[in-house]
Amino acid sequence: MQKIIDEFKLHIDLAVEARDLVRGTRDIEVPGVEEKVEEFEHVKITTISILNQIGAEKMGKPIGTYITIETPPLKINNPYVNDEVIEAVAKSLSTLTAGKLGPKDLVLMVGLGNWRATPDALGPKFIQYSPITRHYHQFAPDALVEGMRPVSGLAPGVLGITGLETFEVIKGTVDNVKPALLIVVDALAAQDVDRIGTTIQMSDTGIQPGAGVGNARHALIEEELGVPVIAIGCPTIVSASIISVQAIKKFCAQGGAMYNDSVATASINSVLSRFGGSLAVTPKEIDDIIEYTSRTMAMGVAQSLFPGISREQLELYIT
Amino acid sequence: MQKIIDEFKLHIDLAVEARDLVRGTRDIEVPGVEEKVEEFEHVKITTISILNQIGAEKMGKPIGTYITIETPPLKINNPYVNDEVIEAVAKSLSTLTAGKLGPKDLVLMVGLGNWRATPDALGPKFIQYSPITRHYHQFAPDALVEGMRPVSGLAPGVLGITGLETFEVIKGTVDNVKPALLIVVDALAAQDVDRIGTTIQMSDTGIQPGAGVGNARHALIEEELGVPVIAIGCPTIVSASIISVQAIKKFCAQGGAMYNDSVATASINSVLSRFGGSLAVTPKEIDDIIEYTSRTMAMGVAQSLFPGISREQLELYIT
Amino acid sequence: MQKIIDEFKLHIDLAVEARDLVRGTRDIEVPGVEEKVEEFEHVKITTISILNQIGAEKMGKPIGTYITIETPPLKINNPYVNDEVIEAVAKSLSTLTAGKLGPKDLVLMVGLGNWRATPDALGPKFIQYSPITRHYHQFAPDALVEGMRPVSGLAPGVLGITGLETFEVIKGTVDNVKPALLIVVDALAAQDVDRIGTTIQMSDTGIQPGAGVGNARHALIEEELGVPVIAIGCPTIVSASIISVQAIKKFCAQGGAMYNDSVATASINSVLSRFGGSLAVTPKEIDDIIEYTSRTMAMGVAQSLFPGISREQLELYIT
Amino acid sequence: MQKIIDEFKLHIDLAVEARDLVRGTRDIEVPGVEEKVEEFEHVKITTISILNQIGAEKMGKPIGTYITIETPPLKINNPYVNDEVIEAVAKSLSTLTAGKLGPKDLVLMVGLGNWRATPDALGPKFIQYSPITRHYHQFAPDALVEGMRPVSGLAPGVLGITGLETFEVIKGTVDNVKPALLIVVDALAAQDVDRIGTTIQMSDTGIQPGAGVGNARHALIEEELGVPVIAIGCPTIVSASIISVQAIKKFCAQGGAMYNDSVATASINSVLSRFGGSLAVTPKEIDDIIEYTSRTMAMGVAQSLFPGISREQLELYIT
Repeated sequence: MQKIIDEFKLHIDLAVEARDLVRGTRDIEVPGVEEKVEEFEHVKITTISILNQIGAEKMGKPIGTYITIETPPLKINNPYVNDEVIEAVAKSLSTLTAGKLGPKDLVLMVGLGNWRATPDALGPKFIQYSPITRHYHQFAPDALVEGMRPVSGLAPGVLGITGLETFEVIKGTVDNVKPALLIVVDALAAQDVDRIGTTIQMSDTGIQPGAGVGNARHALIEEELGVPVIAIGCPTIVSASIISVQAIKKFCAQGGAMYNDSVATASINSVLSRFGGSLAVTPKEIDDIIEYTSRTMAMGVAQSLFPGISREQLELYIT
Repeated sequence: MQKIIDEFKLHIDLAVEARDLVRGTRDIEVPGVEEKVEEFEHVKITTISILNQIGAEKMGKPIGTYITIETPPLKINNPYVNDEVIEAVAKSLSTLTAGKLGPKDLVLMVGLGNWRATPDALGPKFIQYSPITRHYHQFAPDALVEGMRPVSGLAPGVLGITGLETFEVIKGTVDNVKPALLIVVDALAAQDVDRIGTTIQMSDTGIQPGAGVGNARHALIEEELGVPVIAIGCPTIVSASIISVQAIKKFCAQGGAMYNDSVATASINSVLSRFGGSLAVTPKEIDDIIEYTSRTMAMGVAQSLFPGISREQLELYIT
Repeated sequence: MQKIIDEFKLHIDLAVEARDLVRGTRDIEVPGVEEKVEEFEHVKITTISILNQIGAEKMGKPIGTYITIETPPLKINNPYVNDEVIEAVAKSLSTLTAGKLGPKDLVLMVGLGNWRATPDALGPKFIQYSPITRHYHQFAPDALVEGMRPVSGLAPGVLGITGLETFEVIKGTVDNVKPALLIVVDALAAQDVDRIGTTIQMSDTGIQPGAGVGNARHALIEEELGVPVIAIGCPTIVSASIISVQAIKKFCAQGGAMYNDSVATASINSVLSRFGGSLAVTPKEIDDIIEYTSRTMAMGVAQSLFPGISREQLELYIT
Repeated sequence: MQKIIDEFKLHIDLAVEARDLVRGTRDIEVPGVEEKVEEFEHVKITTISILNQIGAEKMGKPIGTYITIETPPLKINNPYVNDEVIEAVAKSLSTLTAGKLGPKDLVLMVGLGNWRATPDALGPKFIQYSPITRHYHQFAPDALVEGMRPVSGLAPGVLGITGLETFEVIKGTVDNVKPALLIVVDALAAQDVDRIGTTIQMSDTGIQPGAGVGNARHALIEEELGVPVIAIGCPTIVSASIISVQAIKKFCAQGGAMYNDSVATASINSVLSRFGGSLAVTPKEIDDIIEYTSRTMAMGVAQSLFPGISREQLELYIT
């Protein structure tokens, strides 16, 4: 598996999947990593804390807290489940921002990704469904309910459309706007198609935009930007190379053939041809999934940022 | 392979791929099928004629003419190649409509597919980039260059958005508008990722909207609609199940394992899980590919429908 | 005023404004017309019934019932008012459809207008915010709550984009789909800027798409389409010629000058120049107004069409 | 007139209109202002140079060069005229940037305005139709033709959508990206409806985003941003108050009544009611006008920034 990951420059976005890769089939603890699981009626919340450099190296992810919210796939088209997910997002964000955010502090939300490629439009859609209030504070304070904090939202687009690194736009905006907290929302890649639209990850570690860039200068993290960064994401694709290697492994296991990493890598490389690691697998109904998850995530975040304000009231600030 | 196709209800959209599946590794002629190949500097044009019911059954496609335009993948970002592709589309359409279309006859163009899911937006984008002139004939004939035919364009959306079968909207519109020719444009699925954005198929056989519907009543064909139907398409996805079976086959071939269709099908089924045949593989840059191919196809079609009128002139009628 | 209306081919969309024009400054009853007014906390509902041909000629509108819902402009950014407007839309639609619509009957909703011109995008936006359920009945009945009727929705675009008369697409679709009721939604023109985003008109008379077309063949009415047609609209513009004549009249009244219809018409004609009656006045925040009103109208209509089903539940069918 | 301008906080965007207001009906020279007129077959180019503070105060605009390109309204739907306009834009931009821009210098283009309100979408549309090349320099230099400079493009949205001042995003991006030149494109307001879609203004003075903000800190000018700023705009609206006062004046002139500024202002105020100066007049076909002008402007700018590179070649970099 590691060979496939290296070959196609894949990035393991989800901490729960990174943990599964470290563990393999053994049910062991990962050194430097703590884990807590809470089960609710329709939602499971797993909190993975990477405590130190040993844990970070094992997991291939920075030190910090990763909260994963999982819903069973078959339950997603159900308003009760939806309310429970909104509640879980709100609670998890409040946990991650505890002590970092005063009730009147400015929050800047950034929706990463390409609004013209459906599976990558999760971040821009999230911004579209989020209440934006900062300008009312300056120009129309009477239009605000008592206690509503200032919130701004930006979808900076992607390098291929703008010729600008996301970091360049965000760093510049943060320096001028000086928020107390940055929330970055992005579409993620998973290792398992069942996670598409059913898993939400929230962490206090920031984000690395663009798989494979790997340039520390461009990370959207507190060290670079000077403000705490909460990253929120939801898988919308699985790499075609992952699907292929899983199919080969299953075939070997079920058919009694011997699996070989190098042969698998070469075979997949030949099938994926010129597109290589850029081939993504996504369901045909991805447009509905993006609508559904971005709205749910936006409502959960809003519930945490504007405590005590009703959903109907918040909807008036969605632009 | 047939098992995978049946299991995941795949539809072989391209006649050249259907022919390859029939032939297998043998370079034989398919009974009831004729083929002609023309090679140009950057473009290869293959004309497959399914002559009778024997050919139709072998190929799994209706009797008719299928023209396939192929460009080498590495050449697509090049204006000279682009001009050659436009020329090939124009010439092929003129071949398919020869004798069916007078110079002043009304043409109705329909862009199938979901404009909210990037790989499926090819049809609607095609309409967006096509000159529309019918209303000028009625309301502003002076704004038309001598000899411009009336052309209308519609993107009816998909069942999941409208709750309407594409057929219901198109049949109704055709009955009221009475065009001499219907051109339907749709995104296709290929068996090979290298075909994405590099192959254009044009046929005089009409189209079956939505894989797996398989209901003759709903086919967009002359027998149902009462006008000749030209279908134009370009692959934008490959089914995830196809990618997976190809990877397994390569693995077996390269690693010396024995391929088994049933085991492969079961393995893939287990990997693709709840989404099954609805999982599509598409490159991350699909938004650029859709823009590029829909514009090229629209210009080629316009060159055939409006002979002798310059591209600059035609651009004024793009809405 | 009539001269301006004739000169610039203006259409009086709102029955309450047609009544005011007939009445002038006199508070008289219009023969053949009945009127009922209900006042609620934040909403006023006026029902104008044109009873016979005499009333129709006086009012310049067909026989039928016109329900107008008015909210005071300053109250619109308020969730309580919004709920009251939704309630009023639901109740009014139920009144207009009483006896015409069984609980399981199919409804086809059509959003008229140009989605690329913001003030004209009300109809397409309405469809976007409406629950669509018809396809579930056929393909996934289990996903429907008991008693949900089938509803379809279509935004056919405008002649300038498609080269198709709206009537041609709708007539054809109705003939194929055979709904029990057609609901057409369109942006209206008012005579008073204060009506923009604050007045909703619903009638059982159908609609004439495109001001000035005036061709009975193309009216979206029961006689032409064979199904009852409910028209719903909200003003989003005022004609620039109306604004100008109002300014001239006020100037004359306040400055003691003598108003003259011919001089006013000539003056306005000279100012509006080549664009003439096609110049529309709209507030800069029209994008927000369109969002707000189309969502409110869609929720009100849904509440009438799906009685007893909660808003959260209905949101799952918004596509 | 000045009273109307003050009352409704109107901003005179076009230098040629500011000059006409200063001059009134007298054909005099404005002190501190020089003017040059060039007439071509279908295009007139007026260069107004505000030379010193006296000229700046007279004109109500900063010191600098304003180039205005005018086409007769009836000629715009014509490919030959279009080519002449593109040529004029290219030449004018080269004049304004002479000596400021080396052949390989980075240019940042910014499209101001609200992409969701059609008449305000000119800036974002301009970016959409412009070739973007900066990222190729870093990641795929082979895909560039020899001598193509790096160009980036950003549409930062408006305060009402993002809660961010345009200045905050642009200042931050400029500081991080360090372009040699900033080009800002915006929709303008004119005093005459015939200017909509027929006049392009280009200046080396930068821009003040948002009428009436008037805060020097937020001006997009070289003093604030540290790079030369070229402003490009095209009128897409006329204020409803301007239309109204023009109608009143014409009425007085033609009908022999006495014009009175205070009475006119009060009358207009009463007609425009709660929306006041935010009411804009725009033709119904504004979506077509925006498409047409933004493409023409983008091609003209590209021809100046990428001299010697063909339009077909440049189209490959339009994202």
